[in-house]
Amino acid sequence: MEQIKRIQRTLKYKGAIVDVYSDTMQLPDGTTAEWDFVAHRKGAAAVVPVTSEGEILMVHQYRNALDRETIEIPAGARDSLTEDTKVCALRELEEETGYRAGKIEKLLSLKTTVAFCNEFIDVYLATELIPGKQNLDPEEFIDVHTYKLQELLDMIYAGTIQDSKTVAGVLAYYGKYGNRIEEKE
Amino acid sequence: MEQIKRIQRTLKYKGAIVDVYSDTMQLPDGTTAEWDFVAHRKGAAAVVPVTSEGEILMVHQYRNALDRETIEIPAGARDSLTEDTKVCALRELEEETGYRAGKIEKLLSLKTTVAFCNEFIDVYLATELIPGKQNLDPEEFIDVHTYKLQELLDMIYAGTIQDSKTVAGVLAYYGKYGNRIEEKE
Repeated sequence: MEQIKRIQRTLKYKGAIVDVYSDTMQLPDGTTAEWDFVAHRKGAAAVVPVTSEGEILMVHQYRNALDRETIEIPAGARDSLTEDTKVCALRELEEETGYRAGKIEKLLSLKTTVAFCNEFIDVYLATELIPGKQNLDPEEFIDVHTYKLQELLDMIYAGTIQDSKTVAGVLAYYGKYGNRIEEKE
Repeated sequence: MEQIKRIQRTLKYKGAIVDVYSDTMQLPDGTTAEWDFVAHRKGAAAVVPVTSEGEILMVHQYRNALDRETIEIPAGARDSLTEDTKVCALRELEEETGYRAGKIEKLLSLKTTVAFCNEFIDVYLATELIPGKQNLDPEEFIDVHTYKLQELLDMIYAGTIQDSKTVAGVLAYYGKYGNRIEEKE
């Protein structure tokens, strides 16, 4: 591949959770171009929480970027730049759903939108759920609902669920454990 | 769910492909908060292109937001706010890989990162591929490679492929047609 090189990065705006830059890129043909770079400050973790009945806990919440409610797997930003995403995933699961996980394993590492943003989300599978206490952040207003895996797959293929971490996380769980689940039913 | 309401939206920065706003939100407890909103101007389409041998065409390209090369399904922004994403998908497939598709069907509608951005990507499955002519945009420098589905699944679960549209698109293809593919092999 021919070499593309960043020759300058200029901060344009500091937001609440992202900083926005303009990158001056030197292209292989010798010309330069201005490309956007949206820096997500902390990275995030998300969880596919599966109950002992094989149902999946999902959160419904209002999203200002879409101006509507979404159905998502529980997720949240890291508390600090050094927080282990597994610790973050367990914390967000309990804060948003009130459940602790007896068992957790990594499913995926995602970059949400590589064309202009560095945000990453590590997605975990949480099982052996134990009831705890929901403890939302002051700016969080969330409802928790349970769904069967097949319901979520139908909603993904119908376009009712579109959030990329949720689509990728549920499909990754299905791809890895789907056959075993179907055998059980 | 309690009501969250946006009471103001202020433009903070106009970038090359995104505009950045600060949203003033009225929360159910009566307080206000400033939330980021990154508006992707055009939306995009992506394609999982499957050859008659069952292999998948992938593009390798440099991404400034990650400062490294990525492995992605072919994708690109719409030419205009009214372009049909299916038309966009067919165009981007041919521009980036040099192949036309005899058959195309919708796999997914994605919102890449709902916490702060409205970017959407419609993901299609393209089959019956016919060799055409690669025709990259002036700022595009892309290599095309083919992979077996199982190779891509391994790379996704190993974290080698992290791009969310690619992870979701490949897993959606596997979830919908995986059994049929395994029967053929």
